[in-house]
Amino acid sequence: MATISFARGAPSLDIVDVEGLKKAANLAFEKDPAGATAYGTSVGYVPLRKWIAEKHGVEVEQVLVTNGSMQADAFLFELLVQAGDAVIVESPTYDRTLLNLRNRGADIHMVDLETDGISTDALETTLKTVSPKLAHIIPNFQNPAGYTLSAEKRKRLLELAVEHDFTIFEDDPYVDIRFEGDSIDSMFSQDTAGRVVYASSFSKTVCPGIRVGYLVGPQALIKQIQTIATNTYISPNMVSQAIVYQFASTGGMDGAIATVKTALKARRDAVVNALTRELPEAKFAAPSGGYFMWVELPEAVDVAELEKAAAERDVLFVKGTDFLLEGGSNTLRLAFSGVTPEQIDEGITKLAEAVRSLGVAA
Amino acid sequence: MATISFARGAPSLDIVDVEGLKKAANLAFEKDPAGATAYGTSVGYVPLRKWIAEKHGVEVEQVLVTNGSMQADAFLFELLVQAGDAVIVESPTYDRTLLNLRNRGADIHMVDLETDGISTDALETTLKTVSPKLAHIIPNFQNPAGYTLSAEKRKRLLELAVEHDFTIFEDDPYVDIRFEGDSIDSMFSQDTAGRVVYASSFSKTVCPGIRVGYLVGPQALIKQIQTIATNTYISPNMVSQAIVYQFASTGGMDGAIATVKTALKARRDAVVNALTRELPEAKFAAPSGGYFMWVELPEAVDVAELEKAAAERDVLFVKGTDFLLEGGSNTLRLAFSGVTPEQIDEGITKLAEAVRSLGVAA
Repeated sequence: MATISFARGAPSLDIVDVEGLKKAANLAFEKDPAGATAYGTSVGYVPLRKWIAEKHGVEVEQVLVTNGSMQADAFLFELLVQAGDAVIVESPTYDRTLLNLRNRGADIHMVDLETDGISTDALETTLKTVSPKLAHIIPNFQNPAGYTLSAEKRKRLLELAVEHDFTIFEDDPYVDIRFEGDSIDSMFSQDTAGRVVYASSFSKTVCPGIRVGYLVGPQALIKQIQTIATNTYISPNMVSQAIVYQFASTGGMDGAIATVKTALKARRDAVVNALTRELPEAKFAAPSGGYFMWVELPEAVDVAELEKAAAERDVLFVKGTDFLLEGGSNTLRLAFSGVTPEQIDEGITKLAEAVRSLGVAA
Repeated sequence: MATISFARGAPSLDIVDVEGLKKAANLAFEKDPAGATAYGTSVGYVPLRKWIAEKHGVEVEQVLVTNGSMQADAFLFELLVQAGDAVIVESPTYDRTLLNLRNRGADIHMVDLETDGISTDALETTLKTVSPKLAHIIPNFQNPAGYTLSAEKRKRLLELAVEHDFTIFEDDPYVDIRFEGDSIDSMFSQDTAGRVVYASSFSKTVCPGIRVGYLVGPQALIKQIQTIATNTYISPNMVSQAIVYQFASTGGMDGAIATVKTALKARRDAVVNALTRELPEAKFAAPSGGYFMWVELPEAVDVAELEKAAAERDVLFVKGTDFLLEGGSNTLRLAFSGVTPEQIDEGITKLAEAVRSLGVAA
C-alpha cells in the first residue's frame, strides 16, 4: 500500500515542466556559456537579477539572488537577529523559521494568526511591552495555515513598523500560486520608509530542486547581506539561475504557473470535499492559493496519537504543535501540493478512520 | 587594451566543456526528472553522493554534498570553531579562509609553508604552547603558493593530530589538476583515527558556476553538519548535482580533466618561461598542478606600489599580503588558470615593466 503524504510542502512531479526545464538548460548553455559556467558574484546571475528587479519595479542593487529562499532567510537573520533580540512571528508559523530563530537565541513572540492574517490588535498589545527587531510575516497562503493577510492589515503593519522601529520580513514564496480572488499589494511595494525586506523563490513556480530564491530590500541592507553571501559561498549557483532566467524570459514561467494553479485548485477542492464528507467536525478555512491547509479537530483529539494512528494507515501529515511554541495539540497541517485528488480522497478517508480509532467524542 | 588578469582563480571559458554540460543537463532531466527537480535532502543528490563515496572508498553516510566547497568550509567552521578557539593555517593561505576564521573570532596561528608543504617542525614548536581545535591544510597545489605537501609530512601531520588532539581539515579542490609527477595519498585515506575531514569540489573539473562541492569525514561529524545544512537551506542544488552526476558517470569528467591539465600545464610553462626571461630576480617554485604560483620579489619591492603600477599597464594580480596576517610585502600570487599562454607572455612582460618603473634595485 502506497503512503499518502500530506506532510511535505512540495509539488508532485506531474506538475513540474520538465520539458521546459530541459529546453531552458540548453538555452542557458547556448546563449550565455560564460555567464552560466563562471563563478559570478554573490549578487547572483546578472540577467536573472535584472529580471527580478523589473518584476518588482526596483533597482537591481536592491536584489540579491540566493540558493533558495531559506538561505536568504538565514543571511537576513545572521545580519539582523542576535541572541536576545525580540522577534515577532505568526502563531502558527513555518517550523524551520521557528527553529532557526530559536537556534540564534532570539526572544520569540508568537502573535495570533487569524484567517485574514496576523492579529494586529494582539500585535499592538505585544508592542506595549516588547521592542522587536523584526517581524516575520508570510502574507499569502501562509505556511502552515493557508491564510492570507488582508490589505487593511498590511497597511496597519507598515504603520506599526514605522511607529515601533522594526523591520518587516515579508516572506512570500506562494504569492504566484493564487487560485481565485484578486492579488493584494505586497507590503514591500507600499513601503516608503525602508522598513520591509521581501523574500521569494522559484521553488513553487519552477521546481524546488532548482534552489533559487531571492531577497529584495533597501539597498544598504542588501549590500551588507551581499558581503555575508560572498564570505559564505562566493556566489550562488549560476547554472541553475541561468536555467531559471531562460525559463522565465522565454515564456515558460506563465505556463508553468498556470499548470500549478489548475492542479492545486483541484487538489484544494478535493481536500475540502473529502474533509466535509469524512470529518464534518474538522474546522478549517479553505485557502485561495498555495500548498497548505490548517485543520482544527475537536479538543479531545491528541494529534500526536492521531499521527501514529494515521501512519498505521500509511497517511502522513505534520502536527500543528510543530508550528507553535505551545498549544495546538488538536491541530494539523495538510499539504495538498504533492498528492492527486484521488490520493487526497483516499487519504482523508483514512485520516477520518484514524480519528475514529482514537475513540474520543466528536 | 584588454586587461590581463592573474588575479582570479578561475578557468577561462575555452577550457570548460560547455557541450558536455549541455548533454549532461539533458540526461539529468531525462533520466531522473524526479530526483533533479525535487527538494531532496541536505545530504545531496543521492546518485552523486554515492559516486563520491565510491571515488573515495567510503560509506555514503560519510559524504555530504554542498553548494560549492566554500559552503562546506562554512558549515565545518560553524560546527568546530568558536570564538577564541585556536586554529592552525598555512602561511600564506587562502584569503577567504583567513577572513572567515577571523570573522568567527578564531585564534589564528599561521605556520610557515615550505615548497614541500607546511613546516612540521615549526608546527611542533607551535604545538608546545597552543592546543588547536583544527588545522586547515591545502595539500595539493596550494592556494596561493602552488606548493604540494610531501608524503612524509602528511604522515607526520596525522601523528601530530592524534598526539595533540586536533582535527585536520584537508581542503583539496585542486587534486585532480596534476600536470606531472605521481599523486600522493591524501591524509584522509591514511587516517585510521577519525582525525581528518576532507573537502573537494567540481569547480576545477566541471566549472565554477555549477557550485558543487563536498565534505567526506567521520560519519558522526557528517551527521552533525547535515543538521546545520538542513536548517540553512533544506537541500543543496539538485539540478546542478544531477548535471555533475551525469557528466561524471557518462565519461565527461575524464575528458574535461585532460583538457584542463593540458591547457594549464602550457600556461604554467608560459609563466615560468616569461618570468625567467623578464624577471630573473623573481623567486618561485614551479607548481606541478593547480592554478597558482607564488612569486617573491626583491625585498625593496613594495607590492602595494607594484599593484598600482601593474594596473596602470592593465595587469592584475593579488598581493601576497592578502594571504598573510603580517609580512609578505614583496610577494604576490599569479593565477594562470584564466589566461592563455600569449596573454601570459604579454602580461608578465608588462609586470616586469611595472617592477622596473618602481625604480628600486634588483
